[in-house]
Amino acid sequence: METWDAIRSRRDVRQYDDRPIAGEDLDRILEAGRRAPSSRNRQDWDFVLVTDRERLRELAGVWRGADHVAGAAAAIALVAPDEEEAWRREAVQFDLGQAAMSMMLAAADLGIGSGHAYVDDQELARTLLGHPEDRFCALMIPLGYPADRPLRPLREPNRRPFGDVVHRERF
Amino acid sequence: METWDAIRSRRDVRQYDDRPIAGEDLDRILEAGRRAPSSRNRQDWDFVLVTDRERLRELAGVWRGADHVAGAAAAIALVAPDEEEAWRREAVQFDLGQAAMSMMLAAADLGIGSGHAYVDDQELARTLLGHPEDRFCALMIPLGYPADRPLRPLREPNRRPFGDVVHRERF
Repeated sequence: METWDAIRSRRDVRQYDDRPIAGEDLDRILEAGRRAPSSRNRQDWDFVLVTDRERLRELAGVWRGADHVAGAAAAIALVAPDEEEAWRREAVQFDLGQAAMSMMLAAADLGIGSGHAYVDDQELARTLLGHPEDRFCALMIPLGYPADRPLRPLREPNRRPFGDVVHRERF
Repeated sequence: METWDAIRSRRDVRQYDDRPIAGEDLDRILEAGRRAPSSRNRQDWDFVLVTDRERLRELAGVWRGADHVAGAAAAIALVAPDEEEAWRREAVQFDLGQAAMSMMLAAADLGIGSGHAYVDDQELARTLLGHPEDRFCALMIPLGYPADRPLRPLREPNRRPFGDVVHRERF
């Protein structure tokens, strides 16, 4: 798909059909995350790919808004260092946002939907995913083919108007 | 360009040739940012597009690593609310990372390079950009056609190995 079509097609998808995602497509999505830029190229992230149905169902319990993980074809958990200093925590989040966006666009390019799931119950996430104590699970990205309609460029997304967001030369 | 090529072509570009960027291309890059997802669709961002050479030169002074802004064809300043609570500040950074990545990939798709510039001197940034006191400039994204070689898919980027970053089912 053309990049501009993928950017305009990506939307929040939380209901998935039963089709599995091919392994090579999952690897491409993960590779898009691996290639993302980060502050001083620190790459402060690990990606845990989950496709096991029982584990996906259990992961749906990490946040009240994560029900959709149970029905996803796969989920990528983004694990990062649990930094102490505020500025480091913020830098990690910025970089995770870059990696997440890159993976979601790589998915959209393949017709695969994604919908953020935050993580409230860190202990449950740790029990299921097995990451060390000095790291936390910042986010899960469930993936699947949309149950309703295929991804197509959205004409007008639900966003602030262009002229409100964009300023020329000065705010 | 195909999405997968744009994802693999994006790299840190800090030297730009003299060509200006067409207005419609700049608007497309900004539109990619406007469409980015955010927590509860808050869209806690404003984008200030700067193309004025004198202002770009002055903006290069906001951080010791921002020299390359002076020679860019344009720069997009990402302005966001200066939240007090740590979790809100972190959420804003994650969302800015998503918007930044979307804009950098939209730029790469057009053959336009980008290279993050952080902002240390917030007062100078405010003087030049004019955003209100309750917001800060989180980042600048200078843009321009690469001075050295055009953007092409990188075979092996400078990143941790795939097998080190990616875990299957459990960490």
